[in-house]
Amino acid sequence: MSHVSPDGLAAASRPLLKARRIGIETSQEFVVYMHRDCQVCRAEGFEALARVQVRVGDRSIVATLNVVDPGLLSVGEAGLSNSAWRALGLRSGDAVTVTHAPALDSMSPVRAKIYGHRLEDADLRRIVADIAAGHYPDTHIAAFLAACAGGRMDVQETIGLTRAMVDAGEVIDWGRDVVADKHCVGGLPGNRTTPIVVAIVTAAGLTMPKTSSRAITSPAGTADVMETLTTVALDVPAMRRVVEREGGCFVWGGALSLSPADDMLIRVERPLDLDSDAQLVASVLSKKIAAGATHAVIDVPVGPTAKVRTEADFRCLESMLVQVAAVFDLRLKVMRTVGTQPVGHGIGPALEAHDVLAVLRGAPGAPADLRERALALAGALLEFCQPSLAGRGRAEATRLLDSGAAWSRFQAICEAQGGLREPPVAPWRHVVAAEAEGRVQAIDSRLLARVAKLAGAPASPAAGLELHVRLGDVVRIGQPLITVHADAPGELAYALQYLDGHPLVDLADETVAGAVA
Amino acid sequence: MSHVSPDGLAAASRPLLKARRIGIETSQEFVVYMHRDCQVCRAEGFEALARVQVRVGDRSIVATLNVVDPGLLSVGEAGLSNSAWRALGLRSGDAVTVTHAPALDSMSPVRAKIYGHRLEDADLRRIVADIAAGHYPDTHIAAFLAACAGGRMDVQETIGLTRAMVDAGEVIDWGRDVVADKHCVGGLPGNRTTPIVVAIVTAAGLTMPKTSSRAITSPAGTADVMETLTTVALDVPAMRRVVEREGGCFVWGGALSLSPADDMLIRVERPLDLDSDAQLVASVLSKKIAAGATHAVIDVPVGPTAKVRTEADFRCLESMLVQVAAVFDLRLKVMRTVGTQPVGHGIGPALEAHDVLAVLRGAPGAPADLRERALALAGALLEFCQPSLAGRGRAEATRLLDSGAAWSRFQAICEAQGGLREPPVAPWRHVVAAEAEGRVQAIDSRLLARVAKLAGAPASPAAGLELHVRLGDVVRIGQPLITVHADAPGELAYALQYLDGHPLVDLADETVAGAVA
Repeated sequence: MSHVSPDGLAAASRPLLKARRIGIETSQEFVVYMHRDCQVCRAEGFEALARVQVRVGDRSIVATLNVVDPGLLSVGEAGLSNSAWRALGLRSGDAVTVTHAPALDSMSPVRAKIYGHRLEDADLRRIVADIAAGHYPDTHIAAFLAACAGGRMDVQETIGLTRAMVDAGEVIDWGRDVVADKHCVGGLPGNRTTPIVVAIVTAAGLTMPKTSSRAITSPAGTADVMETLTTVALDVPAMRRVVEREGGCFVWGGALSLSPADDMLIRVERPLDLDSDAQLVASVLSKKIAAGATHAVIDVPVGPTAKVRTEADFRCLESMLVQVAAVFDLRLKVMRTVGTQPVGHGIGPALEAHDVLAVLRGAPGAPADLRERALALAGALLEFCQPSLAGRGRAEATRLLDSGAAWSRFQAICEAQGGLREPPVAPWRHVVAAEAEGRVQAIDSRLLARVAKLAGAPASPAAGLELHVRLGDVVRIGQPLITVHADAPGELAYALQYLDGHPLVDLADETVAGAVA
Repeated sequence: MSHVSPDGLAAASRPLLKARRIGIETSQEFVVYMHRDCQVCRAEGFEALARVQVRVGDRSIVATLNVVDPGLLSVGEAGLSNSAWRALGLRSGDAVTVTHAPALDSMSPVRAKIYGHRLEDADLRRIVADIAAGHYPDTHIAAFLAACAGGRMDVQETIGLTRAMVDAGEVIDWGRDVVADKHCVGGLPGNRTTPIVVAIVTAAGLTMPKTSSRAITSPAGTADVMETLTTVALDVPAMRRVVEREGGCFVWGGALSLSPADDMLIRVERPLDLDSDAQLVASVLSKKIAAGATHAVIDVPVGPTAKVRTEADFRCLESMLVQVAAVFDLRLKVMRTVGTQPVGHGIGPALEAHDVLAVLRGAPGAPADLRERALALAGALLEFCQPSLAGRGRAEATRLLDSGAAWSRFQAICEAQGGLREPPVAPWRHVVAAEAEGRVQAIDSRLLARVAKLAGAPASPAAGLELHVRLGDVVRIGQPLITVHADAPGELAYALQYLDGHPLVDLADETVAGAVA
């Protein structure tokens, strides 16, 4: 029998491994790759998919372990996924230690919630802090989301979740009494009112430092659309400079660390498609509160393929939003809008940017529905922030848009962010025509979003589609329904192939001759 | 504007990719690696972590996509994780197609369950079939488990889940009226009664075709222990030959495709540590039913660190087990056993095998508690299967063990499986001695399991620990508490280091002189 001294080997049992950027993109998930014969792997008893802590200096992350065969890595190396490499700020040749991940004590209240108990504020704080720090594997986030979905969170728990999400990140203080904001509870392709609303509201002299997200599962987010027009990845000091000069900005929120847990929750929640008012409320409000808003208008499209589908669901969500916002001194106006079809002509970053520019410039053929929605929201926000405008918000918004004041302010903000450019146009396009005639009864927004993504949006900014018909239109055989835009023929073909057997629009049986008579 | 014909490009848009075994072990999760500039990636609009279908001939799997930087793969290649490579039965140079994963329609009832609805039999059948086919990412399995935990499944739903799990795999028919089986609802290190019970029951002339699992989060499963003694990875025909000759077998169930969804659920459930009677019942019973059992004894250790902790929990679980088993014509006897401390001396595959051999051989120093537990279970099973033995089961079991009949049968079964060998002995060992004196009041089974794993169990079969004290023992300073066994000094040191600050046993303050007087 051989004896060893535990003290003598303690230090040696945690040797340094040479970090290597292995070149694998795993989205926001952190993965570390280790050789199966690696001494650390063996000594720690690591198995594939173990959760481990990777440390360099005073920075650390929790990652999932993938064990690799000889060849890909040497025994003394630790391979890092691109996300892990970035999060640790590693440089080639840096040395890391890899140990067991710390115990996830905050899973106890998650389990208790699954078993039917309430979550206290302190529980939510611990859970959200762990999620924001990247300590939860996706499976644990999924269990937390399932525990909170389906109306299982009361108002008090929703307030606690919102506060925990705000506290997990930075909060911006603008030092002003009125800071305007808006948000749309998604689900409607092309509903790109934000750039227009910001232009109108800042032209009126109000402060509106807008942060937006990129698309997660949709063909475009506001940040993707604005990125085809100007630079959106600003940090907080750069954002402050723009807002102090022009009253507003169009910034990608992902670079700002506002409510960082929200991004983690959304990434897991979207594919699960769980309906959780509490999470939706906390997600929307935590971002507004962290961004320093005092007055916000929330656009909630209601329709059969929108996120909110019935009047009762709308009332319930509205009540929750208002009650929770009040606790944080955030004044909120929730607007029910019609969500039965896409908004504007374009779906995809550049195509939506073209619509936004057309409305701001007052171009002939600018989409009337996008203009109307933007004016309604901007008008409501103006009245909300400036009570003296009561009953005249909409008219004032229309004046600021039609006078060119909003367009001037839009250009000035873009210039302050680094310059305004024209959005790109895709080289490959294909018109899909009607194969039957009739009146358009329904348009499948989800299907259109899918086609735009298959065509390359949002990764290819010019990709997406133009929609040529609206509800109630009467179409003839051969009349264009959509034009698909793509950067490459393969992408175009794939999007078109998907349309085989998936009807874009639902046509009522009606003789065209009679209808147009 | 360029035009393309959708039909003309449809075939070209799904080109073949050359499959490459990339050499990454991701446990049972399937991962496919694709070059970021890969035409298929771009055409399909794939992003990192997308779920994709990988197809070769008529076999397909659903995998998670990792996008890789140039260098690791060529543009026309698809890298496969080892698990995905094995599941598709690929050979070097094979070509695969990669497309979007089919829609997961069975998530609708999962969401409905989260929102408070019941799961019907047909729902459970679809969910379990998709899980068994590998169509659920781990996040979706986690959401399903969370939806079913905490007593949210009634008896009818538990029956539906059990049936769905049986139907998702193979079912073995032995063509006999009585087929014995046993199961232990885990949580007690060293409780390795199965090999002894099978030896006794088959020596009595009964049929007991035992399938067992490997460890998932524990230091050893029965299959790991038996693998140190003989070959356990048999297929169904080989298993039949052994059982027809000797009446019983010791087979690793993982090779047999019995209730395959169970393995998937357990893999995700263990780290979440969710307490779900429904899933436990369906897991245990689906495996027994699929293995063709007619009579089974279920050992349920109850204790403060065991899986079942209170008498009330035991009664609830027993009632659910019996009700569900009855529907499937499986006769069940649920036995409550004491679960306050580990069983036997050894914890770890080979160390537990030594205990099993000692009991079978009647060796001096054989662990009395392991012998007693095995005799109680074997006796109950004998009476249960042979009503003529009523009241004499225990005596008969003792006779078969003490006469050497059980040992002879054990050797014969091992010979039929390919030969009996002596389990290995670890080269590195260290004795941990008491640093205080007193009476042993509590032994932390979870801590011991952790130490055994850190020492290398079950991957290193000889690794683990020997426990030298029992509850109620009085220990002096310097007296051995455990001996840690390892294959390498690094592993030994790591296990010992973990013991710093983690007391193995809880000692009552008692003067040794008085206690031993």
